[in-house]
Amino acid sequence: MVAPVAVHRLLERVQSMLHRGETRAVTEILRRLHPADSSDILYRIEPDAQHAILQELPWEEVADVLEELDEEEMVEVVQGLTVVELADVLDEMEPDMAADLIGELDDQTAADLLDEMETAAGVAPLLDYPEDSAGGIMNSPRHMLRRDMSAGQAMQFLREHYDDAHDLFYLYVLEGGVPSIAEAAPEAVTEQGKLVGVVSLRSLILADPAVKLEAIMELDLLTATADTDQEEVARILARYNLLAVPIVDDEDRLLGIVTVDDVVDIIEEEATEDIYRLAQVHEEAVIFSPLPRAIRARMPWLVVNLGTALVSSTVVAQFAGTIAAVAILAALMPVVAAQGGNAGNQSMTIIVRSLALGQIDLKDFWAVFRHELGVGILHGLALGALVAAVVYVWLGNLILSAVIGTAMVGNFLVAAVVGVLVPMTLRRFGVDPAYGSSMMVTASTDILGFAIFLGLASYFVAWLV
Amino acid sequence: MVAPVAVHRLLERVQSMLHRGETRAVTEILRRLHPADSSDILYRIEPDAQHAILQELPWEEVADVLEELDEEEMVEVVQGLTVVELADVLDEMEPDMAADLIGELDDQTAADLLDEMETAAGVAPLLDYPEDSAGGIMNSPRHMLRRDMSAGQAMQFLREHYDDAHDLFYLYVLEGGVPSIAEAAPEAVTEQGKLVGVVSLRSLILADPAVKLEAIMELDLLTATADTDQEEVARILARYNLLAVPIVDDEDRLLGIVTVDDVVDIIEEEATEDIYRLAQVHEEAVIFSPLPRAIRARMPWLVVNLGTALVSSTVVAQFAGTIAAVAILAALMPVVAAQGGNAGNQSMTIIVRSLALGQIDLKDFWAVFRHELGVGILHGLALGALVAAVVYVWLGNLILSAVIGTAMVGNFLVAAVVGVLVPMTLRRFGVDPAYGSSMMVTASTDILGFAIFLGLASYFVAWLV
Repeated sequence: MVAPVAVHRLLERVQSMLHRGETRAVTEILRRLHPADSSDILYRIEPDAQHAILQELPWEEVADVLEELDEEEMVEVVQGLTVVELADVLDEMEPDMAADLIGELDDQTAADLLDEMETAAGVAPLLDYPEDSAGGIMNSPRHMLRRDMSAGQAMQFLREHYDDAHDLFYLYVLEGGVPSIAEAAPEAVTEQGKLVGVVSLRSLILADPAVKLEAIMELDLLTATADTDQEEVARILARYNLLAVPIVDDEDRLLGIVTVDDVVDIIEEEATEDIYRLAQVHEEAVIFSPLPRAIRARMPWLVVNLGTALVSSTVVAQFAGTIAAVAILAALMPVVAAQGGNAGNQSMTIIVRSLALGQIDLKDFWAVFRHELGVGILHGLALGALVAAVVYVWLGNLILSAVIGTAMVGNFLVAAVVGVLVPMTLRRFGVDPAYGSSMMVTASTDILGFAIFLGLASYFVAWLV
Repeated sequence: MVAPVAVHRLLERVQSMLHRGETRAVTEILRRLHPADSSDILYRIEPDAQHAILQELPWEEVADVLEELDEEEMVEVVQGLTVVELADVLDEMEPDMAADLIGELDDQTAADLLDEMETAAGVAPLLDYPEDSAGGIMNSPRHMLRRDMSAGQAMQFLREHYDDAHDLFYLYVLEGGVPSIAEAAPEAVTEQGKLVGVVSLRSLILADPAVKLEAIMELDLLTATADTDQEEVARILARYNLLAVPIVDDEDRLLGIVTVDDVVDIIEEEATEDIYRLAQVHEEAVIFSPLPRAIRARMPWLVVNLGTALVSSTVVAQFAGTIAAVAILAALMPVVAAQGGNAGNQSMTIIVRSLALGQIDLKDFWAVFRHELGVGILHGLALGALVAAVVYVWLGNLILSAVIGTAMVGNFLVAAVVGVLVPMTLRRFGVDPAYGSSMMVTASTDILGFAIFLGLASYFVAWLV
């Protein structure tokens, strides 16, 4: 969660107020903001001031603010709270967010917190699921009703049993089992009936109050299981324009729901992660990261790339004799390498994004490979001819121009092969294909680009001097 | 809109059925699928088969399927329809989607269509807004009520006047003016009252039926104007966890609503666009694009990069004498250039994404610049020292190792400067900062990296041979 510009400016005012000791006034400003905004400010001020402000706020409001931060940020902000205080805050939070926070703590603190919490029964089961699975982002389903209730009865039931409605998107209709209310914890749910349908709030409102839920419920359910990847759940919700996806076990019993507001955040985060990984920046990087964090996010990749660049140096060094004789080769060799690098990264990026969007999977390997090879051959021929022409006009040596043209075609083929092979292989081994692909593609097209060009040039060196 | 894997496979079956002439059977398969899936298949089959299937489907179903495609895809699919047929289809579509389709047609066809359409009054005003503005993606607001209605009356009113509820997310409460129903076109709306609040369906359901809307409405409205960029609207919705954002004119009269399902698509599309642009691929590229389209999406950038690579060649060529004397310089110079390129692209990518997410704007230029310069100096010193050490161990020449270390620091400074300057300057001139940034950053760090390294090496050449 990061501030839009207006908040970023308000932060400066808040900081100078805090320097003058006006903690209470700052607290009042924060309370008047949307939690999405106040959380940004709270996260960016000094720990002492954070602590003082948390003490001034009711726990529900602390919970609202924390829910807007990511896990690491939450943990930083709550550092000063005692276990008892933090348990009170966690009781006010949505179970999935509480579980995310607890998941960041050491085992002892987590156990102590769960002992203190009143809502532990709803939160503890979520800790068993990986953070980026449907189980890790779902909330307990609360709005479960029997199929033989009428629309009017359902509304009456909702009015009597629910006060806080922020997670009310659909009603879930169960067969067998007993309709439960807010306290239902996931364990309790597994003793209940099967999910047979969902009723949207709009159909509930528009229905004749006398009509039964089973007559207006949607039967064609799109569900996911708790171990589904969060990106996959996001994709289902986005593709079918849903507001929430029910998460069920293998007997169709309702375990939880994943809601559209969480999915919007997931889609944005996953895109940022891919963009940063493709640019060889660790996904934790944010603009204005403190220097040590900024460097931790970027330097490791620079060091790895320095390694691959030095390996390609040793390849060039093998041809020192040829270069000493025909120095212009040094000027031309980066052209061959760079074109291969650009083409390889184009192929790789399209594949990485298509994998992320679920447009292709590993079974499409050969189709993708043939397609990219076709593109690579055409690009190689076109750009090889172009560079050969430019070099001939520039330097007037036909053999040199043939050498660079041929090397270019060769490096475009290398680019197509590694551009497909690298991301597909990473996916095959369960690694995010955005991760390290740029480095590997560029290293390959540099090393082989230099080798092909200088190798050919050495063979024909007699015609080049 | 692109197929998930299962649909991609179903397509093969459909195509062989079509080869056997089983159009009717295919139509039945498509009707049983969700429009998000059937649209994918329809788009990918032969135009003749498309046309035959469209003729078999009721116009409402054609409309549902078209709504899942993007503008260009819609136009391809409806090519065979007459103006009268297409007008019937458009009447069944959501106004924003109908406007997108009409916006792709020539002026004469568009005018003919609007003459034929029954819903022209709701669609025509949307044609005035750019496609990527809030005005271009909004739908006519339909659920407008007076503040003195009770919750029970409001539900009764909705039941009586609305049958199709797919765009019912919130009720909009107006002051003055008359509550209107489905037929309200944007022009009509401007004669109505000011928007004073919104009521979510959940608060409507949970409210006592006797309570007035003004008592349960949300007053703290987050609105946007019709000329707001669609990304900005998406950001407001995502940040504040809304299901729809009301679009108002400068007197707070309601013009339309932008809904969460559209925003989810926008966030995904904008991320794909940025990822592709950063990798120098035109955003229209998709996996398995036909070869001519794939090449149109990629070759222009390769040609531009070939141009910049040849410019950097001419820089290297200036130092041919030095390289002929000390050929190992040719092996080392790409290291300096590549490290600058990587560092510059890291800075640039973080800035491009932060601009896209609204975390920074042009006013933050100096703060960003200082930050990136700090990171660049530290990276330059660390990696310059590292490469100097490696080169000394490898080649045993202290002067050469000092030259490459110094050049590295210099090129990291170049990287920091251009990594900030390029995206910020593009934004300043209203160009998407993802567009062309990679090319410009890499060209700068190549050209200046070669120049600094070879320039220093030429100065100290006596100590290098």
